[in-house]
Amino acid sequence: MIQDLSSHTAAQLECEESLYKRVALRISELIEHGTLRPGERVPSVRRCSEQQNVSITTVTQAYRLLENRGIIEARPQSGYYVRAQRWSPPPEPEKSTPAPRAVRVKVSDLVMQVVKAGRDPSLVKLGATLPSPELFPVRELNRIMAAVGRRAPVAAHSYELPPGNRALRVQVARRAMEAGCTLSPDDIITTVGASEAINLCLRAVAKPGDVIAIESPTFFGILQIIESLGMRVCEIPTYPREGICLDELQARLRCCRIKACVFMPNFSNPLGSCMPDEKKRQLVKMLAKREIPLIEDDIYGDLPFSAARPKAAKAFDEDGWVMLCDSVTKTLSPGSRVGWVAPGRFKARVEFLKFVNTIATPSLPQMAVAEFLQNGGYDHHLRRIRRFYAAQVQRMTEAVARYFPQGTKVTRPAGGMCLWTELPPHINALAVYEQAMAAKISIAPGPLFSAKQKFQNFVRLNCGNPWSDAIENAMRKLGEIMRAQADGRNGRPQ
Amino acid sequence: MIQDLSSHTAAQLECEESLYKRVALRISELIEHGTLRPGERVPSVRRCSEQQNVSITTVTQAYRLLENRGIIEARPQSGYYVRAQRWSPPPEPEKSTPAPRAVRVKVSDLVMQVVKAGRDPSLVKLGATLPSPELFPVRELNRIMAAVGRRAPVAAHSYELPPGNRALRVQVARRAMEAGCTLSPDDIITTVGASEAINLCLRAVAKPGDVIAIESPTFFGILQIIESLGMRVCEIPTYPREGICLDELQARLRCCRIKACVFMPNFSNPLGSCMPDEKKRQLVKMLAKREIPLIEDDIYGDLPFSAARPKAAKAFDEDGWVMLCDSVTKTLSPGSRVGWVAPGRFKARVEFLKFVNTIATPSLPQMAVAEFLQNGGYDHHLRRIRRFYAAQVQRMTEAVARYFPQGTKVTRPAGGMCLWTELPPHINALAVYEQAMAAKISIAPGPLFSAKQKFQNFVRLNCGNPWSDAIENAMRKLGEIMRAQADGRNGRPQ
Repeated sequence: MIQDLSSHTAAQLECEESLYKRVALRISELIEHGTLRPGERVPSVRRCSEQQNVSITTVTQAYRLLENRGIIEARPQSGYYVRAQRWSPPPEPEKSTPAPRAVRVKVSDLVMQVVKAGRDPSLVKLGATLPSPELFPVRELNRIMAAVGRRAPVAAHSYELPPGNRALRVQVARRAMEAGCTLSPDDIITTVGASEAINLCLRAVAKPGDVIAIESPTFFGILQIIESLGMRVCEIPTYPREGICLDELQARLRCCRIKACVFMPNFSNPLGSCMPDEKKRQLVKMLAKREIPLIEDDIYGDLPFSAARPKAAKAFDEDGWVMLCDSVTKTLSPGSRVGWVAPGRFKARVEFLKFVNTIATPSLPQMAVAEFLQNGGYDHHLRRIRRFYAAQVQRMTEAVARYFPQGTKVTRPAGGMCLWTELPPHINALAVYEQAMAAKISIAPGPLFSAKQKFQNFVRLNCGNPWSDAIENAMRKLGEIMRAQADGRNGRPQ
Repeated sequence: MIQDLSSHTAAQLECEESLYKRVALRISELIEHGTLRPGERVPSVRRCSEQQNVSITTVTQAYRLLENRGIIEARPQSGYYVRAQRWSPPPEPEKSTPAPRAVRVKVSDLVMQVVKAGRDPSLVKLGATLPSPELFPVRELNRIMAAVGRRAPVAAHSYELPPGNRALRVQVARRAMEAGCTLSPDDIITTVGASEAINLCLRAVAKPGDVIAIESPTFFGILQIIESLGMRVCEIPTYPREGICLDELQARLRCCRIKACVFMPNFSNPLGSCMPDEKKRQLVKMLAKREIPLIEDDIYGDLPFSAARPKAAKAFDEDGWVMLCDSVTKTLSPGSRVGWVAPGRFKARVEFLKFVNTIATPSLPQMAVAEFLQNGGYDHHLRRIRRFYAAQVQRMTEAVARYFPQGTKVTRPAGGMCLWTELPPHINALAVYEQAMAAKISIAPGPLFSAKQKFQNFVRLNCGNPWSDAIENAMRKLGEIMRAQADGRNGRPQ
């Protein structure tokens, strides 16, 4: 791990002082490049002495130097560790400030360009928030699917007409208790992913021209659905940690004739914000009072970085105005397209639209996911990927701090798998995107996340893939692209 | 097979004449009840003599009697056969006569009632045109699915973003040649069944309030899609064998501002009509000239009763105005929900809407269907189910002739799996439906098949299930219900 310095020692054995600085520099570089990470133990003095072929005294001097500079710290009876706060985390973005009026959405062409370009398998994928399927128990799922097919060969190829597979609805209802929801299997309709669920909910409660309140910034998939249905949006300001600002929502409700809301209270995409329970309660009450449906997208709800799964807004729903949409796309299998919706008082209408839209959700994937949720160790798997995503987000934040230009701000997500970074104002995210793609790196430029392509100096980073040299290098390259653009603007040579 | 008559012979041996009549009656009953079917060989004289324990002479006399009455016929060097036209087939319905104007669709509530009620597993299912999954190679499909999952465990759980799985699109393009279409895999987008395909096509080319031309009668699923999208319909008169009347379509095109057409040129549901190639060519030309898209639903195209698969209208499409929709629902697996669309010049828009509607079609079912189409013996399977459906439709027609009231008319489908029956005008199909459901028999009442619930004395019968005593009895019971209703109307006791 640590390169042998003995080749240097022959000429410099007489100069112990120069040598211990060299050892210190080497360790410092390992930390800088992330080989040794904050909180990790550095090699023991004895071991380092062996590895570097230098004396115990030299290593001790080197470690004291690093300790004095605040790079490592000694822990009694344990050795030296990389200090956790060696890098200063960049500041957070401020509350967003969208225009306080209803607007048509015009972002789909840009989204489709980015989505299509993002398929190139040679890219380092920091764009789409796609979890790496290697993290998922795909072999176990396939084994279950084969077993289910053998056990019920005819059912696996027969229609599961809406509301869909009962075993799956039982498992969904059971798990919803952890999100604070009391649901019966009969409250639930299975869908082709949460996307179909959100489409159906919107079509059930609004018509073309109607105004839908969304978070600002919001996931471009939601913007596309609204655009494709000919509806308009009213973008609500958000805080980067707590989500939408209820006062501003209240004000918009008074002036904008809002027909429905589509929010992600838990680990919103792209902010990673999590609305506190009390705010969720107020939100649900505020909307129910005005008889405005809340379409809740909870696909990241199972992915907190702490132990506790946050409640869904649906947990506070007393009169059926909350339509909870969810899927296993971010936790178990994107390709199975198994999702569901608990549409509250709009169940009959959503069930009708589901039947009309795709008749039925594919049977075998539903049966297999039901079986996995019941017997496959889903909780164990969730704990594993939560730890993984938390570490990845931390690591990506460190890389932003290290490589992105001075003045970059970054969110502190409490769950999910993405980071929302605000670049210095003169940096154009679409220009960065173009140059990044030329360098075979995909990112999600900020303009994708608003109706009128605002957030021009923002970038969303996917943290769903295992860290690698390729990602490290891509982050360094992104920093270079951003700095070159900044320098160009300032009249300096690029 | 033939009941032993020897118990009768003891007392009646002296009366050969009475005995041969008895043998003739027995054979006649076997034909009447369908144990011996038109075109089938009756037992040889020698064999019948052994089975019945009567003399060769008696059997010969009995067969001559049946031959004289036109019930069986002798074929040289071959024996006796049940005459093909022993029953007189009921006449066909006339050309349909919908109102020549655009109307809003109002049928979905009724459809949903019928669909929901139709799920009761204790029903004899003559309602939905659902093929029996027992006819399908479900074990082979499950075996393939398991193998594909083992071979490509990660791909099976990753997104197959639109246009969808390439191997499937290659197979679909290859098979489309048999329908006369020259398609490349890049012309095709995979979907969640043909239903999603039709939804996407309609949304791509029309908006709420626009007028869509449809066949009269037409599949209620198409009516529901149009109703759910807030569009209107113009119903085009059809001939029961050749489908829509082009002259009437031409006239409607002049007056009704038709924005798109949704037709099933091959084995339309419910008529089973098949438009001759020359008519298809004219239709495509007529619409292309006016730049009106034709959404072609070809889900029954692979199910002709003769050897030749009819061409799709898409085969005559020179300028990309035909949007071909298809799936494996009627031929291989309803529950997999694997469909596709070749949207011609509207590909980009359909691909966008597909992404927005469900993001992607589930991966593993696409991979498995691709593999089956390539290596699973699809053609062999198709030949088998075509023969099966042809026999079932024939058998159902015979039962209609036998049990339904005098004056009933019935279509002569050339493919597919349903029969469209016109009852005498004073019989109300919805009332028959209610009574049939009470007797645990599902049927599809005619009002489901038009925008304004016309066809009040029509019933569609599903022929997708293997013939059984339960179906025979259900048909007899339906006839009784109809006759009782007719008698009630005529003031006779029910």
